[in-house]
Parts: sequence; structure tokens; C-alpha cells
Amino acid sequence: MEDKFKVTLAGGETSSVIFKKSIDDLCSYLKAYGENVFYVFDENSARILPSIPEKSVILESGEINKNMESLERIIGSALSFGSARDTRFVGFGGGVICDMTALAASLYMRGAKLTLVPTTLLSMVDASVGGKTAIDYSGGKNLIGTFYPAEDVIITTECLSSLSDREYRCGLGEVIKHSFLTEDDALFLFLRDNRESILSRCDEVLDEMVYSSLMVKCSLIEQDPLEKRGIRSFLNLGHTFGHALESMKGYSISHGEAVAWGVARALEASYEENGLDESVLKRGLTLLTDYGYDIGYRIASSSWESYYRAIGKDKKKSGGKVKFVLLSAPGRPYLAPLDEHTVRSLVVQKY
Amino acid sequence: MEDKFKVTLAGGETSSVIFKKSIDDLCSYLKAYGENVFYVFDENSARILPSIPEKSVILESGEINKNMESLERIIGSALSFGSARDTRFVGFGGGVICDMTALAASLYMRGAKLTLVPTTLLSMVDASVGGKTAIDYSGGKNLIGTFYPAEDVIITTECLSSLSDREYRCGLGEVIKHSFLTEDDALFLFLRDNRESILSRCDEVLDEMVYSSLMVKCSLIEQDPLEKRGIRSFLNLGHTFGHALESMKGYSISHGEAVAWGVARALEASYEENGLDESVLKRGLTLLTDYGYDIGYRIASSSWESYYRAIGKDKKKSGGKVKFVLLSAPGRPYLAPLDEHTVRSLVVQKY
Repeated sequence: MEDKFKVTLAGGETSSVIFKKSIDDLCSYLKAYGENVFYVFDENSARILPSIPEKSVILESGEINKNMESLERIIGSALSFGSARDTRFVGFGGGVICDMTALAASLYMRGAKLTLVPTTLLSMVDASVGGKTAIDYSGGKNLIGTFYPAEDVIITTECLSSLSDREYRCGLGEVIKHSFLTEDDALFLFLRDNRESILSRCDEVLDEMVYSSLMVKCSLIEQDPLEKRGIRSFLNLGHTFGHALESMKGYSISHGEAVAWGVARALEASYEENGLDESVLKRGLTLLTDYGYDIGYRIASSSWESYYRAIGKDKKKSGGKVKFVLLSAPGRPYLAPLDEHTVRSLVVQKY
Repeated sequence: MEDKFKVTLAGGETSSVIFKKSIDDLCSYLKAYGENVFYVFDENSARILPSIPEKSVILESGEINKNMESLERIIGSALSFGSARDTRFVGFGGGVICDMTALAASLYMRGAKLTLVPTTLLSMVDASVGGKTAIDYSGGKNLIGTFYPAEDVIITTECLSSLSDREYRCGLGEVIKHSFLTEDDALFLFLRDNRESILSRCDEVLDEMVYSSLMVKCSLIEQDPLEKRGIRSFLNLGHTFGHALESMKGYSISHGEAVAWGVARALEASYEENGLDESVLKRGLTLLTDYGYDIGYRIASSSWESYYRAIGKDKKKSGGKVKFVLLSAPGRPYLAPLDEHTVRSLVVQKY
């Protein structure tokens, strides 16, 4: 693998994705930006660096704080340090911090400089590359946001050692999802054959896993940086099912667990609706189960209405209909609506 | 003049600028968008159409409402109508409504469709074309915003007949400013020779005036859509001086009056600092005076500190210094800092 590559996004703008071997190397790289830098951390990520830079704000952790109030705190704090349009915002943390810092940078005087340092597996493989920024709003996930690619995305898998198991597995859900979105089965086989090393976070496998997962993501987003052609939205495999579960449960389950559960539902729907090969379905469900996801979970029938309402709030609507990402084969995704009866039969417990 | 032209902006995206002869023609054009449309008006612009569309929000008028609260009202209202990413937001009003609707559209599910219908002269020649969106924040003008060009900008100068004189002259300030930003003196001569028809808003001159003014603006923004090369910021001629006056006075004077006053100061600074030809200075000041702007106004020396603080908040800072747009000749703008003493001598009353 390369230790640096470029992704070309909307309007020909590029993000550099840079792998650093250690937190020391990361610090040296950040230091080279100079003084005109403003950092955004959360309580967890603030513990990673040996010392906190003076111009910084530390937010409370958690999806529940991915809101307008936090966004205003970032902007207000940048203002209080006299930041200008040429100030570099560094979002240092998980997906919530990366998404919010990037949104704040895109809005600050119509666009400050931006570096993202994802510190969780989920944010390394998902939130940090691709230019999507967001906060949640009025009960809807990522309802407010922009497209604003970071100039630099710096990945240091040493950060992953301090994650809880739950958080780490949360990112693995997205990695596994990526393995279904490429015709090349190298990532799928890598995940299947290195399960123990991956789950115990061995240094040797982490960089390669993150890199291979990003390659799948980048090949899709480069074809459709602004999500206008339907291609980029294939990355939402499992997300419509999963987001609705997160939303219904008030975000008490993690994004990655919800996505893994949603991917399982999408594979089943693909099998039932469009003849996805049974062996592909089975090996997919097995991989998800082997990595410890509770894909057998079903919602109670009394929760069905609130679940289906949450589905209706999904952003991926067109012509009033929610479209699901389904697969006709590995690496062959497509968008299709599913009728209410089909969705219900997939998500509600039968007895 | 053409009744339709395209402007190419960031990332190769284009805005179509469409001139409609009457409000009836405008209504027919809007009707053709179909049902999936959400309108934003203010109290003034809501009176222009014969009836208000069902899916709409009417905000209070005025720069003082160009804030986070109004932005959230637009987004909340769009949500309440079940709007999705393929919904078209139509900003129907002056610069405040255009800027805020465009910001809301750019943020709504990371980008809804957008049409702007500027109804004031200022918004026709300034706010609606070019992709800048904004709200004011924490005492700073347009501190929060994005670049998000409208697909369609529809101009109907019939709307101008209902403007107050003050509002109309407010837009003329920007038109006059544009006349200094082109080496071609056609717009300058048009303004000088048609003063009476322009001030009495004769149908025959309005479309041509708006069109010619937009041509100057578009030639600059097409060269620098994201304001990264310094070219686009030439459109801020007079704005650094003017914004600080607006901000110091709590927006009790209109933007156009502040800009006209600021242009006069910028012409004087250009004459004193860089030898702008005296005849150009004089004919510029004469034009501004002939159109009724109080360019002789100076601030009291007791207000100097609050004025200079407001200058320091200007977005057009780089390396910690505020840059002013100055002219070496008509159509030959450049950016330069001015020392405190020079600024003071230009804006503070002497006796």
C-alpha cells in the first residue's frame, strides 16, 4: 500500500490521504502547519495528543451532541481566537467531530482551510474522506450539511488502540460493508482470513485494512462526488435500514452496529427481491455474525410504526419514495424502492 | 441585451440568468417547476405575487433578521412540508432572503435545488448571481455562509416599481460601483447620461442597467468563483469601509448607502496612495453625489475606535491584515492594506 494518495472530488478539488506510522509522526506533521490553526476535539480524542494546543475547543462526546449547539460552539470558539478565512480548522476525533468540524470550516467565512484527523476506525474508513459534512437536526440524521472535502486527511492507526471494543467493532461494520461493494473479493477474503488479528488490532493488519476499505469508498465517490448520479449513494448499503433503527432507538445503539444490522437486511432483501445468489447471502451473513454483530435482532411489532416513520425521513428520497441500496451481486449495487410489506417482513420479529 | 445567459461558477456549475418582462411571465415560469417547490418570502416580497403558494414561509424583513434563527425557520418549515433533497427552494425577495434561502438550500440534506427571484435592485445586481450565501453572526456580516450557485436566477424589473426610493438607491450604489470595475466606460456613461430615467425607474432603462451591471460582476466571478485568487474580491470595492460603517451603526443605514460611501473613501484612498488620476476621482465622486449619496459624511472622532474594531472583523483578512480594494485606474483594481492613520484621515471628521 501507498502511505499517501489523492482523491479527486467535486469541482476537481483533491483530498490528500496521508498515513502516519505513529502519534509522534502525526504531531510532527501537524506542527508543520504553523500557528494559524484551530483544533476541535472531543473529550476522548483530547487524550490522544501529549498536550492540547492553545487554540482549541473540546466538545462533549457522542452523536447526541452532533447538533446546532455544538456547531455554534465551534464557530464561536474560532471567532474568539480571531480566526480568519485562512485559518486551518483541524477536526481531531471520531465521525461526529470530523463531520461537525468540516461543516463549521465550510461555513466559516464561506470556507476556512480544513484538515481531518480521524481517530476512530469508523471515521477513518467513512466520515473523513469524501467531503460530506453534517449535523443532525430535528430528529433527522445528517439533515444539515455540505460537501466540503478536507485538504488533508491524516490517518494514524495507533489511535485505534485506545478505542473500546464496541467502538472498534462499530467501524468494522463499515469495512465489512465496503467488502460487498467491490467485485474484487480481496477485501472480503482479507476480512475472513484475518479475523483474529483484526479483532485484536494487530499493527500489521490495520493500515492495510483501512487502506483497502478506503480504496473501495474512493472509487465510488470519485465517480459521483456530489451524490447526484446515484453511484455514491451505493455506499449507503444497509444505511436506510440502519439509520431508522438508530433514530427509533434515540441513538442508543452505535452507528456501525446499526449499519451491520442494516447490511444484513439489505442482503436479505436483495436475495428475496432480485435473486442475489444464496451463497453470497450466506457468506455475507456469516462474516457479519463472525465479527460479532447481532444481525438476528428484530424489532417488536409494537415498534413498527415508529420504525417506518423513521424510514420515511430518510434523505435518499426521490419523487417522494425512499430508495434502498440492494445488490444483484457483490460489487453490483442498485437503488430500488421496497414496499411496506417487504420492509416489515424483514425487520419485525415474527413471534 | 440577451434575455437569458449562463454564468459558469465553481466546479463548472452554471447559473442561468433569465430576464422576464412582467410578473405574469414570471408566474408562468415558476408554475412550470411543478409541485415539489418550497418558497421563502419576506413580508414585502410576499405582496408581489397575486397569491402565496401553499408550501412557503414568510419571514420578517430586514438585515437584522439575517440570522441563525431565520435560517432554522426556513429549514424547519421545509421539513414540515416533507421536502426532500429534490425539492426546489425558491428564494423570492431581496438580498437577505436570497442569501438565506440559498444558504438553507445548500445545507438542506447537503443541497436542495435552488432558484432565486431577486425583487430588489440590490439583490438583482449583487446577491442573486455568483453563488455566495450567508447569514450574519455574532456581530459579523455574512460570517457564516457557503458557495452554492442557484440553478436559475429570474430577474423581473417590474418588481422594482414597488421599492421605496431608499431601497432603490441602495441598489444603485452597487451598480455605480460596478461601473468603476470595468475598463469599458459604457456603464459609467450610461449611468451619467440616463440619470433621470434611471432615478424615475423608466422601463426602458432598467433591464439594460441590470444586465450591464451583471456583465461586469460575472466577468470577475467567472475568473475566481470561490474567491481564492483575489479577483472576485475586487467586487468588494468600498465594502470594507462600508461594512464597518454598517456594523458600527447597527445596520441602521442601508447596505447600498454604506457601499456608496465606502466607494468614495476607496477612490480617495486610491488617489492618495497610488495616484489614481484626479479626473477619475472627481468624476466618480460627482456621479455618486449626483445620485444623491451622502458621501461627504464623516464619523465623529469619538466613534473612531468602534469603527476601527469593526474594520478588524472584516473577512478579507490574510496574514492577519485587512486588505482594501483600491484602483490604479477604472477597471484596474488591486488589494492593499492601509495603515490606521490613513484610514482615520479618510473617515473621521476633521473639525
